[in-house]
Amino acid sequence: MDATRENEQAVPGTVHGYIKAKDKENLQNRLRRIEGQVRGVQRMVDEEAYCIDVLTQIASVVAALEKVGTILLRDHVEHCVRESIEKGEDADEKIEELTAAVERFLRV
Amino acid sequence: MDATRENEQAVPGTVHGYIKAKDKENLQNRLRRIEGQVRGVQRMVDEEAYCIDVLTQIASVVAALEKVGTILLRDHVEHCVRESIEKGEDADEKIEELTAAVERFLRV
Amino acid sequence: MDATRENEQAVPGTVHGYIKAKDKENLQNRLRRIEGQVRGVQRMVDEEAYCIDVLTQIASVVAALEKVGTILLRDHVEHCVRESIEKGEDADEKIEELTAAVERFLRV
Amino acid sequence: MDATRENEQAVPGTVHGYIKAKDKENLQNRLRRIEGQVRGVQRMVDEEAYCIDVLTQIASVVAALEKVGTILLRDHVEHCVRESIEKGEDADEKIEELTAAVERFLRV
Repeated sequence: MDATRENEQAVPGTVHGYIKAKDKENLQNRLRRIEGQVRGVQRMVDEEAYCIDVLTQIASVVAALEKVGTILLRDHVEHCVRESIEKGEDADEKIEELTAAVERFLRV
Repeated sequence: MDATRENEQAVPGTVHGYIKAKDKENLQNRLRRIEGQVRGVQRMVDEEAYCIDVLTQIASVVAALEKVGTILLRDHVEHCVRESIEKGEDADEKIEELTAAVERFLRV
Repeated sequence: MDATRENEQAVPGTVHGYIKAKDKENLQNRLRRIEGQVRGVQRMVDEEAYCIDVLTQIASVVAALEKVGTILLRDHVEHCVRESIEKGEDADEKIEELTAAVERFLRV
Repeated sequence: MDATRENEQAVPGTVHGYIKAKDKENLQNRLRRIEGQVRGVQRMVDEEAYCIDVLTQIASVVAALEKVGTILLRDHVEHCVRESIEKGEDADEKIEELTAAVERFLRV
């Protein structure tokens, strides 16, 4: 996967991110589990499960999504932000973008 | 839907929640949209979309899930908590359960 | 404290809340500790402490404040919301207010 | 302020952070306002203000603290993380520390 990316001809105008190969599988597993949890919540609502149990399940999906977010954040800093600083290209913009993303998560 | 519930023979040992009929549809629509968003995030990870865009999408799914949580919370207070207080049955337990659910959301 | 409140002549137009006497002391202790922590953060900024240490301290103040919030929430439901439902007065309004307060905390 | 720091003899074993001079004043103003808000909450609890009003005030202090957190985060990335990457010193450690700090904020 990584080798492919090194060689790939970037489609002009397409910005690509960078996710470590081992994180990609980890993330996809987490996201599939999250998708299953969301379908589980749908079933709970359908079967009129006890509200508190549904709420507990939703709080757990939120935590799982935020965990995915922090893994992506780490990859982003380790690769994109780091690279832009090393090359001295767009570093300010990358740092601005990063803190804006964290603010969106915290909804500040 | 509500009429059915009033008449239903509760399965012994099964605790049922209460979700207003009109909220049920609203919640299911929101949850289906959330499921679609999660699949969208999977696709973004697969196609190595730009990390910041994936993070933005995840923050939006989290907000959508918390909105679902607050709709459920409102129904729960309006029905279950209210009823337990009106009947003078298990009110303390219901209130305890409610604040514990809010704490799980805030992760205090 | 409670006895006093039962007998007190409410100032017209003043809405009073209800905080259990034992929670009041607990809350004041927590709030004084929080005030001290905020002053500690000011000192850290002044002395140019390591950013990560300041951030850790701020995260801890946020958690302490949210804990205070959930104690107040519990007292509010146990007393005000419960009373309004028992008396059948303004229950809808109280429930609306409660869920709105939780939403403000979650910033949904 | 900055000039002083460049020249200062670091106390051995003391790690210093870096806060931009103009942010330092901004942060101190925000922290003093936050301290005042916390004292305001103490007063509200003392005078048994309406719980919902106290909760609203607490939610606003939390948001103000998280804003301070994101300003510090930005300065930290702009200076410490950037510098460690440019010098090729401890970059991995700095990035690890940064994502751990964000996780503590999100309580993932």
